[in-house]
Formats: sequence, structure tokens, C-alpha cells
Amino acid sequence: MTPRVILDLDRADRVGVTEAVLCEPKTTDQLIAVLDQATAAGRSMLLTRLTPGQLSTLPPDFRARIDYEEVSRTGILGEPTPAIGPARVAIVTGGTSDIGVAREALRTLFFHGHSAIEVYDVGVAGLWRIQQHVTTIGKHPIVIACAGMDAALPTVLAGLVPGLVIGVPTSVGYGVANGGRTALNSLLSSCAPGLVVVNIDNGYGAACAAIKSLRHD
Amino acid sequence: MTPRVILDLDRADRVGVTEAVLCEPKTTDQLIAVLDQATAAGRSMLLTRLTPGQLSTLPPDFRARIDYEEVSRTGILGEPTPAIGPARVAIVTGGTSDIGVAREALRTLFFHGHSAIEVYDVGVAGLWRIQQHVTTIGKHPIVIACAGMDAALPTVLAGLVPGLVIGVPTSVGYGVANGGRTALNSLLSSCAPGLVVVNIDNGYGAACAAIKSLRHD
Amino acid sequence: MTPRVILDLDRADRVGVTEAVLCEPKTTDQLIAVLDQATAAGRSMLLTRLTPGQLSTLPPDFRARIDYEEVSRTGILGEPTPAIGPARVAIVTGGTSDIGVAREALRTLFFHGHSAIEVYDVGVAGLWRIQQHVTTIGKHPIVIACAGMDAALPTVLAGLVPGLVIGVPTSVGYGVANGGRTALNSLLSSCAPGLVVVNIDNGYGAACAAIKSLRHD
Amino acid sequence: MTPRVILDLDRADRVGVTEAVLCEPKTTDQLIAVLDQATAAGRSMLLTRLTPGQLSTLPPDFRARIDYEEVSRTGILGEPTPAIGPARVAIVTGGTSDIGVAREALRTLFFHGHSAIEVYDVGVAGLWRIQQHVTTIGKHPIVIACAGMDAALPTVLAGLVPGLVIGVPTSVGYGVANGGRTALNSLLSSCAPGLVVVNIDNGYGAACAAIKSLRHD
Amino acid sequence: MTPRVILDLDRADRVGVTEAVLCEPKTTDQLIAVLDQATAAGRSMLLTRLTPGQLSTLPPDFRARIDYEEVSRTGILGEPTPAIGPARVAIVTGGTSDIGVAREALRTLFFHGHSAIEVYDVGVAGLWRIQQHVTTIGKHPIVIACAGMDAALPTVLAGLVPGLVIGVPTSVGYGVANGGRTALNSLLSSCAPGLVVVNIDNGYGAACAAIKSLRHD
Amino acid sequence: MTPRVILDLDRADRVGVTEAVLCEPKTTDQLIAVLDQATAAGRSMLLTRLTPGQLSTLPPDFRARIDYEEVSRTGILGEPTPAIGPARVAIVTGGTSDIGVAREALRTLFFHGHSAIEVYDVGVAGLWRIQQHVTTIGKHPIVIACAGMDAALPTVLAGLVPGLVIGVPTSVGYGVANGGRTALNSLLSSCAPGLVVVNIDNGYGAACAAIKSLRHD
Amino acid sequence: MTPRVILDLDRADRVGVTEAVLCEPKTTDQLIAVLDQATAAGRSMLLTRLTPGQLSTLPPDFRARIDYEEVSRTGILGEPTPAIGPARVAIVTGGTSDIGVAREALRTLFFHGHSAIEVYDVGVAGLWRIQQHVTTIGKHPIVIACAGMDAALPTVLAGLVPGLVIGVPTSVGYGVANGGRTALNSLLSSCAPGLVVVNIDNGYGAACAAIKSLRHD
Amino acid sequence: MTPRVILDLDRADRVGVTEAVLCEPKTTDQLIAVLDQATAAGRSMLLTRLTPGQLSTLPPDFRARIDYEEVSRTGILGEPTPAIGPARVAIVTGGTSDIGVAREALRTLFFHGHSAIEVYDVGVAGLWRIQQHVTTIGKHPIVIACAGMDAALPTVLAGLVPGLVIGVPTSVGYGVANGGRTALNSLLSSCAPGLVVVNIDNGYGAACAAIKSLRHD
Repeated sequence: MTPRVILDLDRADRVGVTEAVLCEPKTTDQLIAVLDQATAAGRSMLLTRLTPGQLSTLPPDFRARIDYEEVSRTGILGEPTPAIGPARVAIVTGGTSDIGVAREALRTLFFHGHSAIEVYDVGVAGLWRIQQHVTTIGKHPIVIACAGMDAALPTVLAGLVPGLVIGVPTSVGYGVANGGRTALNSLLSSCAPGLVVVNIDNGYGAACAAIKSLRHD
Repeated sequence: MTPRVILDLDRADRVGVTEAVLCEPKTTDQLIAVLDQATAAGRSMLLTRLTPGQLSTLPPDFRARIDYEEVSRTGILGEPTPAIGPARVAIVTGGTSDIGVAREALRTLFFHGHSAIEVYDVGVAGLWRIQQHVTTIGKHPIVIACAGMDAALPTVLAGLVPGLVIGVPTSVGYGVANGGRTALNSLLSSCAPGLVVVNIDNGYGAACAAIKSLRHD
Repeated sequence: MTPRVILDLDRADRVGVTEAVLCEPKTTDQLIAVLDQATAAGRSMLLTRLTPGQLSTLPPDFRARIDYEEVSRTGILGEPTPAIGPARVAIVTGGTSDIGVAREALRTLFFHGHSAIEVYDVGVAGLWRIQQHVTTIGKHPIVIACAGMDAALPTVLAGLVPGLVIGVPTSVGYGVANGGRTALNSLLSSCAPGLVVVNIDNGYGAACAAIKSLRHD
Repeated sequence: MTPRVILDLDRADRVGVTEAVLCEPKTTDQLIAVLDQATAAGRSMLLTRLTPGQLSTLPPDFRARIDYEEVSRTGILGEPTPAIGPARVAIVTGGTSDIGVAREALRTLFFHGHSAIEVYDVGVAGLWRIQQHVTTIGKHPIVIACAGMDAALPTVLAGLVPGLVIGVPTSVGYGVANGGRTALNSLLSSCAPGLVVVNIDNGYGAACAAIKSLRHD
Repeated sequence: MTPRVILDLDRADRVGVTEAVLCEPKTTDQLIAVLDQATAAGRSMLLTRLTPGQLSTLPPDFRARIDYEEVSRTGILGEPTPAIGPARVAIVTGGTSDIGVAREALRTLFFHGHSAIEVYDVGVAGLWRIQQHVTTIGKHPIVIACAGMDAALPTVLAGLVPGLVIGVPTSVGYGVANGGRTALNSLLSSCAPGLVVVNIDNGYGAACAAIKSLRHD
Repeated sequence: MTPRVILDLDRADRVGVTEAVLCEPKTTDQLIAVLDQATAAGRSMLLTRLTPGQLSTLPPDFRARIDYEEVSRTGILGEPTPAIGPARVAIVTGGTSDIGVAREALRTLFFHGHSAIEVYDVGVAGLWRIQQHVTTIGKHPIVIACAGMDAALPTVLAGLVPGLVIGVPTSVGYGVANGGRTALNSLLSSCAPGLVVVNIDNGYGAACAAIKSLRHD
Repeated sequence: MTPRVILDLDRADRVGVTEAVLCEPKTTDQLIAVLDQATAAGRSMLLTRLTPGQLSTLPPDFRARIDYEEVSRTGILGEPTPAIGPARVAIVTGGTSDIGVAREALRTLFFHGHSAIEVYDVGVAGLWRIQQHVTTIGKHPIVIACAGMDAALPTVLAGLVPGLVIGVPTSVGYGVANGGRTALNSLLSSCAPGLVVVNIDNGYGAACAAIKSLRHD
Repeated sequence: MTPRVILDLDRADRVGVTEAVLCEPKTTDQLIAVLDQATAAGRSMLLTRLTPGQLSTLPPDFRARIDYEEVSRTGILGEPTPAIGPARVAIVTGGTSDIGVAREALRTLFFHGHSAIEVYDVGVAGLWRIQQHVTTIGKHPIVIACAGMDAALPTVLAGLVPGLVIGVPTSVGYGVANGGRTALNSLLSSCAPGLVVVNIDNGYGAACAAIKSLRHD
């Protein structure tokens, strides 16, 4: 017997972002129960960390109704919120391997009606790469900066642009990179004031913070 | 010889918050060099983690010009930015022992012309304490929530109010509280989406993030 | 040669709970030796962390005599103790992914003749979910609360109900959730007095503690 | 200005144990505010981790009204709950250095009207020491076992007596004892089923769990 | 090109134990190079952590000349040293899952001409199990005690028998057992004096220490 | 009230080494209780980690009867066991700062009637230092090798001499030396087979192991 | 859509070493984008941590143009820099299992026109192995020393030869070897002055440092 | 009795840098023994981590012969090597609090006849500070970059200048800065190739590496 699922369907009204479903640790039965309940309530739903393998085990009708993007491993059931206006968020990555996390943020924004510009592969070991984008990035009130290993990029950015920089440490790297913990600690002890941080690889959380911050404009 | 200090005096113009001086690891000679340079440039300056012992070693004329608050261990040299308007930030703590960190945030806001309401000692082990303040807190676009040990308060808050919740883990507690690391990890792995986090005891950083977030209103 | 197994068959008489067999690290030969010995002694036996893969390698006659539940990965060989009376334990989880651990506790109780009510998916990011169950939960002398990530639920519960709350950290989550260590540390440094804790994912141990606590009624 | 303190004075009615005040991280002003509020409400109050140095900074009238015990660093303001009956708890330690923690548990029980027998210095490196007390300890429904370093004592006890064993790791030891973390991890991964654990040195928490467990008799 | 291997073939003459080959991290080519060189030198060789998968990739003639035991994952190429006399070592385990490590020690002793008695599955949660073997174990000058999780068995043994107890932490367990680190730390901080320790799962090292200790008889 | 102390006075008969008293975590009252009991039983007693400050708080008559050595912070109450014969142990250190730990081992041996040669300050960064002593050291069946930081000395020694090498990691060093944990881990993962290890700074434990190993000659 | 890749093609002119591509965390699409861009720019490119599995997913024309070496898992696209002169670097390993990392360094040197001598399997547990090579190694201004587990070899070397020793910890070993962290910490706390260190298994980085150091001759 | 000290006085001839004395963990007697031996041998000597308190306990004649600098806590007994030529090393710090470590490097260079330029307080949160010095720094074959917290400065530098960058993590910061471990890990996982690293606060080691690297010019 699969226990009953209690979705927090009123979360958007209460706190401005909807409950997403973290799919990775769930069984197929649990996923189906969640999707059924969302369908019954007539709600759209954002699915994060949905692996291709999990997707393939869902019934065909669900698969047909899910807009899936493999890079970010996100799925959207139903319609996203209509787009709100020009991009108010810049999403930046240090390397190519951080793009999956960046795209999770982008998709979360998209699901909630926001858009963003993307500036990828601009790590500070080649400083000219970020410098040629600083003016553009600086026009956005929110910057989501995804970086692994030593995660120096968000610090450098936070010293250059006036927007709120949300650092997302990524699990890229080996050895002392330690699954993203070095990037995380590096961001938290950044010498650039006002840099805030979310969990490792948590592009979804960074986007939610962006949405909450933009809500009071 | 005390080496020359290079202050980043234009930081406020560039990124919206001024450079504060982290006093704790500095020698008296280094502190005097910093204060001299700020004085020469006609700038106000925020001093964080300034211990009473350090303060007492400064020359009397500097001591006289520093507005010092012991609970937060902050000093303000010169005039703060004039107050901007009604409080847009709510500062909340789980316990009495978190108040020093909360006050560091409050003083940083004050230095930059912002004000905040304070709601202290409302940890979730007595849930009624936070519940009687939720409506008030929920009217502020930014909530700075300071909590140590298991740091459950910011998670509960982030599920109740629409503003951006900035969690500040504090080093209160013993044993596995581990100098604030458990609170930090707890906040980062919170199930409440959009909660962002700063370093342990970093009330200053939380306030800077609040200022950056409010700047785009 | 498979070495002789020494089961502690009198444990129930001595300390009130029987020895269960932790199957995961055992080879098929070792499992068969254990089952043979239990059969020879005419004892029932609880098998924990028995993977479907391991089950499939057992001889058909053993498989036929084991009542297996996949969600909890538990097997019961022989008859459980007859049921004792109404449920004196409430089992609660923060999320859907914690249910496997909760069910391990439930099955352990069942094996020893106890029953429990189940309240799942009531994490505190949507506080209303737990609040609508508090009165019911509060009628049980023992509450087993399973939660991963920041594990805020058991703390909130322990501040609301008079029963003994046994916190079971789960390994759900990613990044700093760290395989359940953050949940564990969070529970151990909870500000709610009297909360006790067992190892990560140890639903079996929580149930044993419940049985020992209820024995002295 | 010392911020207002919000005590959770109804906690005993709600969950069966009163709020104690963890004194160590508090300033003298904060302690006085707490004591004033308890006095005004006509409540008794348990003070834990109150150092002799802190005690000496309190006003004489408060000092006179606090029953202080130095071994456990606990203070009791006002009258404890009248004693309830014969001892239902056995408190056991591995070594002499664990006694401070054991006494914190004893004083917490005493404050709530419970009593306990004390069996100290019976670590398992000299197994005969615990064996000569097993029968006596086994007559108590709750055993609070305090041990540092490898903390083998609670495991051995939990395999010998039928009561609920609450393990309290202590910070005794050096090197890999690691401030009690090895004892904590050892207890959590004990092979004795039903052993529950609290934070390092948390005698208070163990006693609260005992009280909650005994309440449903 | 496979680089040349430099075996330390005179190690036995120098320090009393031969160089064993840790197979797990080696490629098939590297293993063959090692075996070729031993064959050319007319030496026997002990192979540790040789997986069945690795074994199957070796040429048939090597496979035929290796005496392989699957429980311990050890192989012996050529003839072991002739047996020396009665067993002077007792090998003890806490649980069934520790037997692989125990057998690695046994095979290492055997390769060097020593024998041992085996006493398995006598963890202290059922104290009677070890007690019925104490007199026998106590007659051996060396005791190799393998235990995982809280590893309380070696401490209890070291307080009961006069021989040198060599503790081998094993990687059995889950959650805070942490791959054997809790067992390791527990052994190192044991309150039983004179207990010495080797790396996690290092039955080979324990046997080498036994051989060195027995050499000076 | 100081609780009664239970000394394990028959430990020497049972396991070959006497119980020593770890003084550092004990109060003066607890130390006096221990010394009184030893005196009453007519036993000698070894005191380890006895700080000069603690010594100075003991009553003059106890101080007069304690043979105290400051480098090792050890005290001997009463007479040590008469010396047994020529030195069978070599004690070696990497640096000057490891000598306190080495001396704790020496004093423990002395208390039990054993003697040792001392070879200090022979770390492998200047390899000639150890090489000129290898022949001498190699004549002893037991080598106690104390080293901090990277602790390479015991590994090099264990590859050169036939005796049992007992590695004692020391807490010397800074940064990643991490209070001796790096030295400890380095010793445990040594590539020299048969090296056994004790807790950080545990010269006492190393000497006890030496005594147990020598006992069976 | 695969995001655009921004290669730092002028890095060699700026800092003396070219950007290599860390292949392991990249998808096939990302690898192809990188290779396409290098091809378009007419540049050679070094590929590190390219698994055989990844290689097999590349289009045949790319596979044909990549010089792949399996031991080091490196690929070279296009022509390496022509060889510069006699070997100025000695590459040394403690064991056979460290050779993959050593070869990554060798291939990186080769790509940049440098050569090196290789001295493998000379760990200090058999000290004679390194001693017979010291004179040869000592003639090279740079020594890259790769070692896992306790990593004692680089320390011993740094005390014997005048060249700059670059220690590369490797992830070889089990238990407390901890994926190379013990080797890393051991190297960083080495008592041999002037030893510098790179990340675990980072043969590439060691070679880049060698190239930078040799550039100023 | 103070044990004999064995100084490695020929180290400079062998490996190019002299043995320095790490003073912090040594007793006054040990320091005097070292200074006596150096004096007797007619050698100069570098003393690192010599606290003002230790200095004050030395006999007046030694104090008079030691050139002490408080910022770096270094002392030089006797004459340093005569200066060799123009500065070939640039020493850079992120903040004011890193200067003590930078000066330890400078003094070590000076003791060996090398000089350096100093560029302090140029952390990347104000990127213009480092950019105005890049050309100057880039003219030096060796750059010693000292930085704490997130230690982003050395990465940025290593992407801009051709010299060998030696990163020195410093213990500046609080919370997750973790005594320099975050800076260390950040440097080791830097995305800038060829960055090498020494232990936390180890300015001495960085200077020794610089000397060894420059020796082969």
C-alpha cells in the first residue's frame, strides 16, 4: 500500500513559490500518487531531480503531459505561469559542468513566470571572460551564480555588481572539491558582503529566493 | 612598520554596501591605520567584531568618535546614512543567546539608513511564541532569522511568510551544535524553498543582503 | 566453510526485544545459516534491510515462509507475537521519502505485538499539516518521528505533545544533508527537551526503544 | 538595552517538563531578566550549565534563593516539585569524570519530583564492576548511562537489563575522543537494540526523556 | 607499456613479514607483472583484497596456482611457510559480518606458518557469548579482535585477558558507523589499556603485528 | 559529596598492567579520593596527565609521596615494580616536541619494572639521523615511535627493524596537523605492514601494549 | 540546446600553460562542442580524466585525431609542443597504483614540450628502493612525487634532494586513507621544508606547476 | 633532564634551505638547548612562531642576539645570508590580517639572501585593487599569495601572471572559514592550473619552496 500523499497546494498563495517535488528519492508509485493528486486538483507542478530512468517508468499519459529537460533533469506537468516581463535575473556559471544546476534555476523561474539571461563558462581563472559581461549582468537586480571547486566567481561578481548575488555551489570537481563542500564553504566565507548561499546543486532553491526577492518590487 | 592599508572606499557606489572592518583579527596598529584612513577620506565606517578589549586600546579621540554597542560588538565611526523610511526588515531570533548576532544585523542596517523590527526568543519548541507574531513579520519583504542548535525557526518561518527569509546560523549550543555548523547545515538543507543562508554568526552579511535586495524596489 | 552462527535467542526474555538480523552485509550462506538455526529452535525472526536481490537468492522454501514488505525491506519468518491492544505509538514522517524508515519501525512493532497509527508527509514547511494531527498524536505515549534534511518536525512535535518523542533521522536529501548526518545533528541539538535519537534510518531501533518504554506500564 | 525575554512558562502543562535555562551563553543581564520574570510569575526554575563565575556575578538576593550544586553546575530557583515515590531511574557512569553529567540528570529529576539511584565508576574495562550491580539496575524501568571515550558501558547494559537505556555521551577523553563525538557515534551505532541517545554531556535532556517515558505509567 | 614493478622481496628477512600485494587498486596487467616477478624469483606470495572479478581476468595458469578463499578475498601463490606449532593467536569477531576481515588475518597467519583459533559472533550485546570463551581466549598471547559499529568487544576483552589485544575495526554498519570510522575511534579511545589498533578492515596488518610480536618469544 | 571511587585494583593480576589514573579531567576532590583509596589498599599508583596546577592543589603529604616528572606530566605514588632486566624497548621520536609523550611511555614502563633506550629527534626529513641508530634500535623486540605532523618516521622504521613498532601519533604541529589526527591517519594507513597504533599522545597506552607483548616471552 | 563554450585559448600566452579540458563531468555534447571549437581555432588540446567510456561515445573522426593513453586517461587532440630539451623533471611514485596519476603528469609535460624520467614503486617501507635512485633524481630541478596512504615518500625525498618537490597525494588505499585525504594532509604537514602540494590525483596540476617553475630558467 | 637535541645542520648543503626551529610547541629549556647548539656550531638560525612570551623567558644574552619581528613572530639568531640580487619574489595578501603570514615568508627569504616586493590588502572583492598591480607582480618568477576565508585571490592571480603562484591559506576568518581549512581546500581545488599550496599559515614553507624553485636558474 502506498501511503496517502499530502501536497502543500496552497504554498504559492502563502509564501509566493509553489511546492516542487524532489523526485530522486521517490519510488514510481510515490511519483504517480503525487502526479495524480496534482492532476485531480488541476494544478501545474514542477518536478526536480527527475532522472531519465524514473521518467521512463511513468505511465505514457503522464510522460506525454510532462515537459522534460534533460540537462536540468526537470519536468513541468501542466502549464507554467504566464511570463511576467523582461528578465530580472542573470544566471552565471564558472564552467560548462555547472550548467545543469543553472538550468534548474532557469526552469524554476520559467515555471513561475520569470525569465533570465544566461552567461555561462566565465570562471575567474580567465578573468577577461567575466569582465566582458559585467555591465550586462549588473543591470539585473538578482544574480544567480553557480560555481564548483573553489567557487571564486560569485565572490568576484559580488564585488562588481549591485544586485543581490545568490551563490549556488556545485558538486563539480574531485579530491578536496569534496562533492561541493569546498565550493559551499568558500561562498559562505566570501569576503564580498551580502552574498547569500543555498545548498549544493540547489538551483531550484536559488530561483525560489530570487522570486521571493523580486516579489516586493 | 605597519603596512599600508588599502580600503575599498568606493564599494558603496559600486555594489550598494560599504566595506566594513572585521576588527577581531587585527592588531591595534592595524585598526588605527584603518581609522586614520577613513578619517582622512571623510568617510563613516562600520566596525564589526570589535571586542571591548580592543576598543580600550584605541586612542581616546577615536574612542570618543565611535558609537559602540556591546551586545553586537559593533562600532560606528562618524555618521550613519540618514534613515530611509519605515522598517522593511524583520529580525527574529530563536533564543536569547542569538541576540548579539541579531543586533549586528540591526546595526548594519542602521548604518546604511534602514530600520527593522525585532522579534526575539520565539524558538519553535514553544510554537505559540512565533505564531503570535507571524502576521506582523509577514508584512516585511525581508526576514532575517537568527537561530542556533537545530535552527528550526527559519524553516518554519519560511513556510509561513512571503518575504525573503535570510537564515543566520549562530554558534550557540554545545556538543553536536558544533560551533554553529549543525545550525548552518540544517538551514542549507531546509525543506522550505527559497531560504538563503550566510556564514555562522554573520549578522553583518545578512543585513548587506537585505540592503541589496531592497535596493531594487 | 561458513562459520557457525551464535544467535542470542534468549534476548527477548532478558531485555524485552528479540535479536533481529541485519541482512544487508551478510552473504546468502550466512543468511541461510541464520534462518536454519531459527527454524531449528522454533523461533520467529525479524529480518531488517533485506534487499529484494538478497531475498531472491534464498531457497524457495525460505522465501515462502518469509512475510516480506518491500517499502521497509523487512521480512518476518514465522509468526509475530499476537497483538497486544490499541495503538500506543504514533509514527510520523516529514516527507514521502521517509516512509520506508517509518515502516521499518511499524513492522518491528508489529512483530512484537504492538500497533501504531501512521501520520505521513507532515513536514513543518507547511505547518498546517502537522497542526491538524497534533491532538491525535498527543494521545499516544510514544511518538516515533522520522525526518531527513533539517529534521525540524520532531522538534516542533516535542514542543507540542506530552509523549516521549523518538527522533529517527533519515538519509533523504542531497548536498549538506550528508546522508542523514545533518538531520541527526539537528535532532541531537534540538531545543525541545526530552527528544531522544537513534542512528540514521534506524526505524528498528526506535521501535525497540518504544517497546522497552511501554513495557513498564 | 536588554531585549525582553519570552519564557515558555506553560511548557510543563503542555509537554510534561519545564523549560530550563541554559546559562552558559547568557550575559549576567540576560540571566537577571530571566530570573526576574520567573520570580514575577511565581515559578520555580532549573538553571543548567551555570558556572561558578556566572553565579558570583548575580545580585546577592538571587544567589541566596538559588540552590547551587557545583559538580553538576546546576541551580534551582524556588522549590522543586515534591518527591513522587521510590526511585524509578538508575543513573550509571563509566568513570569518575562522567559524574558531573550524571548529576545534571539527577538534579533535573529531583527538580521534577523524581529520584534515582546512582551507580558510578563501573566502566567495562573492569567488567566485574558493572556485573555486581546488574540485578539492582535491572529493577528500574529507566537507566541513564553516562560514558565518554568509547562508551561501551551503555551497550553492555542495554544487553543485560530490560529497562529503557538512555545513553549520554560525555566529553571526557583526549585525542580521538574528540570532545565526546566518538562516544556519541559509538552509542548511536550500538549493536544493542533500543538504546536511545541525547547530545554530548546532556544530562538534562536524558532526565527529561526519563520523565516523559515514566509519565505514561 | 606497463611500468616495471619493484617488489621488496627481502622484506621477510629484514622485518619478519613478507610484502603482500594489495590487489584491489591494480589493473590486470599490473597483477600479472607482480605474479611474473614472484614466479621468476621462486617466491610464494600473499594476495589481499583480490576480488573474484579480478581473479577471473588472470590467465588460467596463474589461476590454477593461486589458492583462493572467497570469504577473505585472499589468494596464496605457491607454498605457505610450513606450520610452526600450536595456535598462539585467538581471532574473535563481534558479528557474522566481521568474519571476512577475521579470515584475512587467519590466512595471513597461515601464509607465515602460524595458526589461530577462531571465536566468532560473540558481540557484547549478548555478554554471555564472550564470557563462555574467555578462559580459552585468555590462554593465547595474542588476541585479534574484529568488530564494527561501536566495537565494544575488544575493550571488554582487553579488560579480561592478559594477551596483547589487537583491535581491527570493520566497515560493517550504516549511518554513523561511517564505514568503520566509529569503530576505529572507539577502539583508539578505549578505556582498556594496551589495546592497539590497525586500519579499518586491515586483518592483514593485524596478523603481521601478531607475527612480529610472537617472533621475540 | 564526592561519590565513592571504585578502583580496579586487581587489574594487574587479570591483564598484566595496572589501572592508571587519568588526572586531567578530575577535580581535586576526586584525585584525593583516588589517592586515599590506593593508600588504604597499600598499592602504588601511576598518575598520568597530572598538570603542575593540579599537583599544587593536593595536600602536602600527598605531594611529598608522589614522584612527579614535569616533561611527561606523570606522577608515581609509592614504589614502582622492581626493575626486571635489560631494556627490551626502544623509544624513538621524530622531533623535540614529541618528547613529553615519549617520556609518558618511559615512565609507564618504569612503573611496571621495564626499562627502555631513548632515541630522540630523528625525523626522516634528515634521514641520516635515524639511519645511524637503526642497528641499535633493531635489537629491541618493541619499538615505540612517537611522531607528529606527517608521522613518517614510524613507517620508515617499521620497514627497517624486525621488532613490533607501536606508533604514537602526537598533537604537535599546526593547521592540517589537526591536533594529531593527520599523524594518526598517516600511521594507520602506513604501507609498512604490522605497524600498530594507539590514540594521539597516548604514551601510556603504547607502554601497556609493550608490557603485554613482552609478557609472553 | 547545448550552451556555447568559452575556451580560454590565450591562456598559454598569458600564464604559460594551456587550458586543459577536465572531461569526466562533461556530457558527450559538451565534449564535442569543446573539440569543435579547438578544431576551428586550429589549436591542440589536452584532455584529462577522459574515461574509455566517454571516448567511445565521440564521433569516429574525433576519436581518430585523439592520441589516447589509458593508464593516465589522457587524450591529446592535435600536435603537442615540440620537445624542448633533456628531462628537467623526475616523476616518482610510492607504489604501482600511483602510476596513473604519475602518467597524467608525464603526458601534461609532454603536451607542453617537456620530458621527464620515471622512477616508480619506490615507497619508503623498503627504503633501499628510493636510496638507489636518489643521486639520479637529485639532478633534476623539479621532482613530482606521487604517493597515497601515508605519503611518506615525498617527505623523505624533500630531505634528500635539492630540487623543488611537488607532492601529489593519490586516492589509493582504503579505510582511513579516505580517498587521498590522509595523503594530502600528511604532505601538507610534512616536516620537510619547501614541499608544495596539489589536489588529490592532480598530476595535471603538478606538471603545470613544474612548467611554470622551469619557465624562468 | 632535557634530552639532547640533534640539529640537521647540513640541511642547507643537502637541499638548499636550512632547518628552522618551530618554537611554539617547545619549552624554554628546549629552546635554549637549540640556541646553544647553533651557537656552538657557529651557525645562524631562523626561529619561527616564536611568541613574545617565549622570547621574554630566554636569557638576556640570547635575546640580545636575536633579531625579532613581532608581526611575523620570527627571530633570526646571527647573520642572515648576504642579499643575492633584485627581488625575484612578489608577496601578496588578500587582507590586512594575512600580513603576519606574508611577513614570515619575507623574513625566511631575507634569512636566505632573497628579497621580495610586498603587495598587501588586494582581495578580489574589490577587483581594481589587484588589477593595478598585475603588471608589476607579473614580472616576478615566483608569487607567494596569502589569503584566508574563500582565498579567491591566488586563483585570480594564477590566471593573470606567468610566474609560479604558491598559495598560502591563512587562518583568518570565523565560522566556516574553519581555521583556514576552507581557504586551503579552495586553493587546492582552484580552477587555475599550476597553483601549488602549503599548510595553513605556513609562510616559512612557501618561502622555502620559492628558494628551491629559484635555485635552478
